[in-house]
Formats: sequence, structure tokens, C-alpha cells
Amino acid sequence: MIKAIIVGASGYSGAELMRLLSSRADVSIETVTANTSVGQRVDELYPALAGRVDLKFEEYVPGKMKKADVAFVALPSGQGMDVVPSLLDAAERVIDLGGDFRLKNTAEYSRYYGKEHTAKHLLPQAVYGLPEVNKEDIKKARLVANPGCYATSVILGLLPALAKGLAKPGSIAVSAVSGISGAGRTAKADMNFTELNENVRAYKPGTHQHVPEIEGALRAATGLEPTVSFIPHLVPLTRGIHSTIHSALAAKTDAAAALKTYEEFYRGAAFVRVKKGMPQIQAVARSNYCDVGLSVDERTGHLTVMSAIDNLGKGAAGQAIQNMNIMFGLPEDAGLN
Amino acid sequence: MIKAIIVGASGYSGAELMRLLSSRADVSIETVTANTSVGQRVDELYPALAGRVDLKFEEYVPGKMKKADVAFVALPSGQGMDVVPSLLDAAERVIDLGGDFRLKNTAEYSRYYGKEHTAKHLLPQAVYGLPEVNKEDIKKARLVANPGCYATSVILGLLPALAKGLAKPGSIAVSAVSGISGAGRTAKADMNFTELNENVRAYKPGTHQHVPEIEGALRAATGLEPTVSFIPHLVPLTRGIHSTIHSALAAKTDAAAALKTYEEFYRGAAFVRVKKGMPQIQAVARSNYCDVGLSVDERTGHLTVMSAIDNLGKGAAGQAIQNMNIMFGLPEDAGLN
Amino acid sequence: MIKAIIVGASGYSGAELMRLLSSRADVSIETVTANTSVGQRVDELYPALAGRVDLKFEEYVPGKMKKADVAFVALPSGQGMDVVPSLLDAAERVIDLGGDFRLKNTAEYSRYYGKEHTAKHLLPQAVYGLPEVNKEDIKKARLVANPGCYATSVILGLLPALAKGLAKPGSIAVSAVSGISGAGRTAKADMNFTELNENVRAYKPGTHQHVPEIEGALRAATGLEPTVSFIPHLVPLTRGIHSTIHSALAAKTDAAAALKTYEEFYRGAAFVRVKKGMPQIQAVARSNYCDVGLSVDERTGHLTVMSAIDNLGKGAAGQAIQNMNIMFGLPEDAGLN
Amino acid sequence: MIKAIIVGASGYSGAELMRLLSSRADVSIETVTANTSVGQRVDELYPALAGRVDLKFEEYVPGKMKKADVAFVALPSGQGMDVVPSLLDAAERVIDLGGDFRLKNTAEYSRYYGKEHTAKHLLPQAVYGLPEVNKEDIKKARLVANPGCYATSVILGLLPALAKGLAKPGSIAVSAVSGISGAGRTAKADMNFTELNENVRAYKPGTHQHVPEIEGALRAATGLEPTVSFIPHLVPLTRGIHSTIHSALAAKTDAAAALKTYEEFYRGAAFVRVKKGMPQIQAVARSNYCDVGLSVDERTGHLTVMSAIDNLGKGAAGQAIQNMNIMFGLPEDAGLN
Repeated sequence: MIKAIIVGASGYSGAELMRLLSSRADVSIETVTANTSVGQRVDELYPALAGRVDLKFEEYVPGKMKKADVAFVALPSGQGMDVVPSLLDAAERVIDLGGDFRLKNTAEYSRYYGKEHTAKHLLPQAVYGLPEVNKEDIKKARLVANPGCYATSVILGLLPALAKGLAKPGSIAVSAVSGISGAGRTAKADMNFTELNENVRAYKPGTHQHVPEIEGALRAATGLEPTVSFIPHLVPLTRGIHSTIHSALAAKTDAAAALKTYEEFYRGAAFVRVKKGMPQIQAVARSNYCDVGLSVDERTGHLTVMSAIDNLGKGAAGQAIQNMNIMFGLPEDAGLN
Repeated sequence: MIKAIIVGASGYSGAELMRLLSSRADVSIETVTANTSVGQRVDELYPALAGRVDLKFEEYVPGKMKKADVAFVALPSGQGMDVVPSLLDAAERVIDLGGDFRLKNTAEYSRYYGKEHTAKHLLPQAVYGLPEVNKEDIKKARLVANPGCYATSVILGLLPALAKGLAKPGSIAVSAVSGISGAGRTAKADMNFTELNENVRAYKPGTHQHVPEIEGALRAATGLEPTVSFIPHLVPLTRGIHSTIHSALAAKTDAAAALKTYEEFYRGAAFVRVKKGMPQIQAVARSNYCDVGLSVDERTGHLTVMSAIDNLGKGAAGQAIQNMNIMFGLPEDAGLN
Repeated sequence: MIKAIIVGASGYSGAELMRLLSSRADVSIETVTANTSVGQRVDELYPALAGRVDLKFEEYVPGKMKKADVAFVALPSGQGMDVVPSLLDAAERVIDLGGDFRLKNTAEYSRYYGKEHTAKHLLPQAVYGLPEVNKEDIKKARLVANPGCYATSVILGLLPALAKGLAKPGSIAVSAVSGISGAGRTAKADMNFTELNENVRAYKPGTHQHVPEIEGALRAATGLEPTVSFIPHLVPLTRGIHSTIHSALAAKTDAAAALKTYEEFYRGAAFVRVKKGMPQIQAVARSNYCDVGLSVDERTGHLTVMSAIDNLGKGAAGQAIQNMNIMFGLPEDAGLN
Repeated sequence: MIKAIIVGASGYSGAELMRLLSSRADVSIETVTANTSVGQRVDELYPALAGRVDLKFEEYVPGKMKKADVAFVALPSGQGMDVVPSLLDAAERVIDLGGDFRLKNTAEYSRYYGKEHTAKHLLPQAVYGLPEVNKEDIKKARLVANPGCYATSVILGLLPALAKGLAKPGSIAVSAVSGISGAGRTAKADMNFTELNENVRAYKPGTHQHVPEIEGALRAATGLEPTVSFIPHLVPLTRGIHSTIHSALAAKTDAAAALKTYEEFYRGAAFVRVKKGMPQIQAVARSNYCDVGLSVDERTGHLTVMSAIDNLGKGAAGQAIQNMNIMFGLPEDAGLN
């Protein structure tokens, strides 16, 4: 039985971790902590979990947590680095779903996250938890930095095109749309239903914190120096990310050949499905799949890759559990189908 | 009093024409025709119009229509060319909201619309009805080809960047999202609420019929030869189009300078609002406005322009009425605020 | 030219007042005030109003407001009674869209609104602004208490049934559903898109503050003593209220006869449309209409009345403007079509 | 290994059956049939099932189906009675998710379903598959009539109130709202996203085919003769039913006592959760739970019960699998958490 702690369990990623883990016979959720809901029953905040998770949110107290085999950190970015150092004493393995251990370059971290990094000593051991790239390192890691939601969808969409020479590394522009759960469970007037329903708008054009994560992961995996002009948008749905990844073709090809390249690249990947048609969010919602499709516009010389994930699934809790499975030598898809 | 006919009034663009025209004291809707709803009261199909439009849908019979000052054609593309020749006998002016008279090149028409053009003799006199570009020609036109919804949003978003040398004409890639009303009032299983809610998907990547319209209008207006890799998507909302237009910067610039270029370009345009921040669909829904914003990513050398319209407003019925106002010498915004 | 002040203009009812009034040639919005957005441009908070309302939100300072012909109060209930006394010095007429002047019984006010009434001296002169019932009193009023959104839909739905003896006054039970804009523009986690999308839930069963308003207005209009078991619900849409009003039949009747009773009752009412079929929210959205339909279940002896309004239209700003029109001797539907 | 056939697998209930069954190690889906999609791969129509269901839709040919342990019929009501007689030869047990075997009274069937019953001889052996009422009969049944979605939510909500004397049997009125998936995967213009989004409307007031099912099941379970005035509505969400069940109190009680009655009644029921607060659709979506809450309005003498289910879960496929579990002696919640 794997004993698990979830730190910051009251947000949407935490709730999804609880939903997924509570259906497993081989994992037991021992402790869940929260910032503002301490003392509240989990099923009061998330009535869907009534009869499934019989716990109250506790306070996270460094040095006082029960021992566990694995700890998930589902705090907002910027808070993970406060707890991970002490959490590594309580848990054999730590998986941080936030952004604090994804960038090796702390100057980049400061620029994109707007604060100084306070746990730099742990960065060297942190493994970027994208199993399609880093599975061997994940197996051995004590600290996994679970990838960002947008980043997962863009990296998985782009990687074959860059690695196999289909896309020009300097030409990449991405329009991505996200469901609103990606913004977290916060009390902000502009997250109000009325503000977001029947609406679409871009935000943080070119400055989103997943930009260095995307570029860094692609650089590490391919040796190239891609730049990504990244424009995220909010659309009126709860769950899901769809990325449309534009690039100039690096070489003459056609759709069939490009598709074959992708199919070969992801042969054996448990959770990437290369589609003949267009991927769609409904097909991946509440799953750990990343669906990828593509279009070659020979007339204009463009390759466009579409990728769809669930931001709380492959973009957060699902991928975290996939990482846990890998770290503990379990089947990669345990509890994920 | 301007007497108006609406041919194909039972679809969403037709209904929006009726909504807008019925609130005017200077226009009278004389006749509305439909394909499948002949004999039905308008307010039975569109109960929002009860007490406002007291008409039944009639059959369109060539040569038998009452005389009118203006006729709007709100039929699906491919059907307009069947009625416009006879309609020009009944009405002083004709505004076709479909795609049949937008392209001068009939080979292009066949390629993108999948059928032969049957009214080629009228193409020379058809004026492309984008007032921000063609106002003088519209004033004198008897036949106006009202622009497509996606096309309007992309052309208005791109035009200053191309005309003023900010964007490289060969680098343009567009991700556009549309509300579902854009697909029309049809009985198709894949337009079912359940198929589209909580979903996002691309369709017709690189092959949408607005591609030659966009490139042609931009070519005509700038003398350049831009190519556009165009990827439309469906998102779960009723009304609105948001286009995210990516291009490589043609020259070094910054956001402030680019914004100033846009503001100057659209000074005096009644319905284009250049925004300091990001445009959004809610701000233009049920209006005739096109809101435009932009981002300059100096790091990657990209200019991104965002533009938002209502697909039934500036993208169809609103723009058609703007064109009517221009053709009849009325204030351009009559009945549109 | 009617000079208007809007106090509390930054909420959704205030924005709808601005939208409707800004399109009129005979009304000028002189001043708009807000609690938290003082100094901000209106079109920054509501970009839809760019080019239409060129004002900044000001602070409301008692005794310092410019003179006006009419003042609208669009504050949350409980705040109107703080400003109305001083506002009556600045404006000839005041229309309060909140709940503070709707109940004559201050004990009832305390029980349902949870605070003491602080402007009891104004209650005798406050006129309940439901034009279908009180038009003559509204004409002469200086202070109008604009009805609540749920209350409007239930009263207009029930009134003919009670007045004409179709429904048993002690048997009434109402299920009403509201769009989320009814909850206002607030920063609460449970108003977050993610909490409300793909969800339906009842709230305040039997204790909503519109209960005494409904019962009181029906009592005043019919002399009967109806009781209403009222269950409001939130549903995932922005605008609209649909009330399903169940009652035991007081006498044997059938659907045709009941419908005729309703049609006769509302003959001449500018904004109530009695429907042969079922009313629906789409038909009344962004309008000032109340659509009413009904069903007689002879088998079970039940009459069910359905009524649909826009909560920001006939349920708030639209009705307030209808009241203003009546107070100023204008056509009742001026600026409302 | 339980071998399963799904007849009519291309609709939403069929897809949900495939989703739930494909995640089980003890069930194998052998054959899926469809009317219009014969020859198509399942994952083409339902891409969410890619990698999980590797089958094509086949034609249903009486007498030619492979033997199976269990057959699910997910056809539209009125079609089940055509296949069940022959299906009973191919499968040990049959569970019909449609309405054809729910009513024992064939005159009632004709009145509400609009056609003659063609398999009357099977009605005596058909067991109404509501496990909270009929578990012992379900265990022994060869043919189970799986309850309707609205019916499940209303019966489970009302049963304790009637059985324990809280509600007057002649006073019951129900407002129920359903997500759009309940209307099935059909190509109808009025199921179009645009027609249903931002809309609410009642339909079939008092005449819905679940009325006799509700009354009959409650009569059978309590010996009373309840009548139900039932008003269903469509609301803009994909999945879920919320029923608000109004009744006159049969005896003086208060909320705490009524709640205790409900808690005791459902003690031991695996899938009914009695809530202290209001149930909501989000809490039951994609689950087999029915959440029930209530309100006692002592002032008006009304009891209101709210119940929430997923129309495709406890309202269709989930309950069908719960029935299968019971029929095969498996844990009642196998594959349902």
C-alpha cells in the first residue's frame, strides 16, 4: 500500500488527485492539507467525493507530517518551494504540480514568476516529469517537477516536428485555449461565470510562465534552440486545453508523411494518441491522454499541429499519478483508465 | 421609408437582420422568404420577434417578388447565385451575405466552394462590402458581396500590419475560434449541444473558403501577396469570433509604436476600436464593432494581432446594414447602436 | 433632455442601465457612481460601452451630487436606504433597483434582509414599480421601488390565475431558475465559472427575500392571502429567469380557457406576451418582455404557469426604464425595443 | 469473464456503457450494434474510447448474434420491444435501458409512447430495475427494465416522503431540469447548440412518458395512489438531472426530523447519499450516485425534496451496470467508483 500525502488539496488539481487516488486499491491517502479550509471535511468542499474520501483538511506543519511514501504538492506556483524542503523529510518521493522546480535557471524563474527562488539547492535533483521524454530519470527521482498544463500540450505537440526536422525552430507561434479550471479555485471577480461565459479573450501574450518551460524542455530534448511566441486564451468550458501550434515547414513534406513521423515517434507512448483527424477536448476530458493531430498546408509552407489534453488530467493530476506509477515501478497506466 | 426584402430569412443571419431592421423607423421589412419554413409565422420560429415582426415566411419566386429598395440575401453560400440575378430586377440594391460574389476568380470559387459558379456575368459589378476598405465603391454599388465572418475579423486585424510594413506577408498564420451560430441553423448530429459543449476542435485546417477571400482582399488593399495559413475552431459559445493572427515582424518595433500605427489607421472608422489591452468577444457581442488589440514579442520577433467581432453582427447582418446605410446615404451607424 | 444619475453603476444592473440609456437621444447620463471602481473609466470595466459612455465612476457624496431629473440606484440591497434620503434632494425622481423600499413591513424586512431598516420614513411614499399593476401610482411617484427579478417573473405569472380564481392561494409552489448575472459582479469562489458550469443547485429554499415581496404584491393586487413555497436555483447561463409556478386548480377548467383568461388579463400590457406554447429564456433575453405560458393537468388537478424574463431586463434595468418612461409621461416602451 | 453485447451502442447511453464496461477486468464487450453507424469503428464516433474499445458497430440480426452472458439494449424507446424477444435467445440476461418494459399496463404504454406494444408476452417477467426498491427481484430476473432518468430521480426523491407519511399523495408537483444528452444523439435543428445554449424551456408539461412510470413505481412500493404533475425542462448543460419535488406536508414536521427519516430510509443504499445541504449536479456527474436533500417550509406547509443524478449514470448506463452486478452476484458497486 502506497501512503500518500497531498499538500494543497483544496484546489482543483488537489481534488482531481483525490478523485483519482481514491479509486485505487493500492494507494491510501493519509493526509490532505490546505491553506484556508483547515478543519473542513473534504466532502463538504467537494461533495462529489462523499463516500469516497473520509478526511478533513489539515494544516501543513513542517517537521510534523506523518511519514509517507509519496507527497503531491498541489499548491499555487511560488508556494511549493516553501514546503518541498521539509516535505522531503516526511516523504520518500515528492511530486510538485506547481512551477517552482521546472526551470533550472533561477534568473528565468524570477523573470517569469515574479519572485526569488528560495530553494535553489534542490533544483539540481529535480527531474522534469514528462514521461514521454524523461522516463528513465523519473524512475530514479526523489523530486519530480510535474509539467505545466499548457507546456505539456505544446511540448508533446511540437517535439516530433522539431526532433524530426519538420518545423523551423525560429518560426513557432502557438495559440492555446484553456478551460477555466486552469485558473484555479479563486475568488476573483474576473473568474466569475458571467465574465467568462459567452466570451473568449487572450491574456499574458508572450509572457506566460510556461514559455521558458516549453523552450527549455524542447531544447533539452532536441539540442535545438526553438523560440515560441505563445498566446494563451480563456474559453468558456471547465476542463481542457487545446493548442494550435503553427510553424514554417523546414522541409517539403505532405500530411501523410508528417503523420507517419508522428505515429512512429509516439509508438509505445501509453498516453499519446496520434489522430488522423483533428483532436478534440471532449475526447481527452477526464483522461490522461494527449491527442495530437496535424495539418500540412503545402501552399503556404506551414505545418500546424493540434494537441488536446485535460488540464487537470495529463496537464496536472493525471500526469502526476503517471509519474508516481513510474517512480514506484507500477504499470504506467495504473488507476488512469 | 426603405422597403426591404430578406431572402433566406429563417437562418440566424436572417433573424439578426430582422431583429436589427425591425427596430428602425426608416426601414420596413416587406417580405421575408425561406426554403423550408414557408407559411410559418416568423415569431413562431423566432419567438424573440413576437410583437416586432408580423410576417410569414414566403416562397421566393423569381419574377414574382414585390418591388423593394433593398434585398438582403441570407442564404447558404452556393444558393445566392441562384436568386441574385432575378432579385436584381425586383430590388434597387442587393446585398448578399453569402460567399457567392466575394471571389472574382471563378476557378478559386470552384476549388473552395465545391461547385461551378452560375452567375459569372454579375461578378464584375459585385463590390466587396468591407466599408473600412471600399466605402466609395459601396456607395455606388447595386450588388454588394458582404464579407465572411472570419474574413472580416482577419482582414481588419491584419490590414494595418501589412499596409504599414509591420508584418511579413509570407509568415502569417491564424488561429480563429467561432461561436456555433456561425454554423447556421441546421439539423446535423455534430451541431448537437452535447457534441459541442465542453469541447474545442479545429476543422477545415488550411482549406476554409474564407482563405482566398482574406488573401484577395488584402492583396487588393495593399498590393502585397500575403499567404495565410488559416485554422478555424469551434468553441462552446453562441456568438462571436476571435482571431489570433500570428506573423513575423517585418521590422524592429515595439508594442507602443505598433499600437499607434493601428490607432492612426483606424482613426475615423466608425466600427473598429483599437484596444490598449486584449479585445474580447463579450465586448462586441450583439454589436457591429470589431475590437482589435496586439502584442509585440520582441524576443521571438513576432507580432500577434487579436481581433474580436460578433459573427452575426460585424460578421454578417450588422455589416450588411452598415453597407445598406452607406448605399442609401444614411449615417453609417444608423440602427446599429 | 432627461438628466440621469446612476448610483452603483459598476454592477451588472448598472451596466445594463448604461447600455440602454446610452442609446437614447432623450436621456443623458450625467454621473455614474461606484463603491470600488472610483476613478476608473466605464469602458475599462465594461469594454462593450467603449465609444458609447464617456464617463468615469465617481464617489457618491451625499449633498454634493449634481442635480438630475432622475436617479437610478443599482446598489446591492441594504445599501439603497443609505443613499436614497440624500438622493431625493439631488434628483426629482428616484428609482431603486434594490430591495430596500419594496416591503412596507419593516419586521419582514429585517427577517428576510437580515438588517434593520434605516429609512423607514420614506416607506409610505415608495411605490412598488410593477407597471402591470401600479401604473397610475408610478406616474405620480417620486420614489419607485423597482421589483425584484424573481418577484417580477412570479407575480406576472401568478396574478391572472389568482385574480381570476384559477389557482388555490394556499397551494402555490415555485421552482425558479436564474442565470448567474443575478448574483452580481462579486469576487466569491462559489461564483467562479468552474463551480457553476455543468451544474444546477437550489439555494435559500423557502427563505429567499423575494418571498414576502411576491406574497405582498399578490395580496395587494387581489385581496387574497396567497402563500408561496419558493425554491430558486442557479443554472449555467448568464442572463434570464424561468419560473415554473405550480398550483392546485381552484375550479375545473382546461388549457384553452385558462389561456384565454391570461390573454384577456394582459391585453394592453406592453411587455407581457402570453404564449400558446412554452415560453423560453432566449425569446426574452436582452429585452423587457415577460413571456408567459401555461399547462392545465386535468388528471392531477394542477395548473402550472411558466414565465420567462431577462433578470437584468424586465427583472431590473429594463423595468426601471419602463418606470422612468411612465414617470416622465413618455411612451412606455421608449428605448426598450 | 462476463461476455456482454450492447444493442444500440452508438447513442450516448451506449457510449457510457462502453466507457464504464471497458475499464473492467471482469467484463468483455463482445459485440456492439447500431442502426446507422454499421461498419464504423467505435473510436471514430467516440474518440474518447480510442485505445479502450477496439470494435466496429455491427448490424443487429435476430438469431445471428453471438451468445453472451448479458445484453444491454440502449435503443430509443419503442425499438427495444423489437429486439428483446430474439435477444433473450442469445443472452442469458437482458437489460433494456429504454421504456418498453417499464409499464405493465399496455394501454398506458400506448397513451404515453404513442404506439402499440408488440411484445406483451414478456411484460410479466420484466422486472423494474430500481435496486433501492426491487433488489431481490432483480437478482432473479432474466429481463430487467432499467428505469428512466427523470423517473429515477423523482422516485428516489419521493419514496421516503410517501412511505413514511411526510407528503400528501395528491399534492405532488415536480419541476425537473435535464442536461441535453438526455435527448440523445439526434440530428434535429432544435437540439442545435445555438438553440439550447443560454436558454431554458419546459416541454411536454404533464404528458412526459415518465409520469406513469413514476406513479406506478411509487404505487407498487407504497400501496398509495400518488399523482404527479410533472414538468420537465431543458437547461444548457450536457449531463445531469435535478428534480425539485414539491408536496404538501401530510403531518407537522421540521427539517431535522424529515432529514432523519430520509437518512434512515437510505441507510445501506450504496448509491443514494442524503445531504444536509442542497444536492447539486456537479457532485453526481459521471457517477452512479443519487444525491437527495430537502427543505421543510413550515410557514406554507410544504415539503420540497431535491434530487440530483447523472442522466447517463444513475439515470441510464450506471444503473444498468448496477443491475448487472446484482444479477451476477457481484459487489453492487463493481466498476462504478
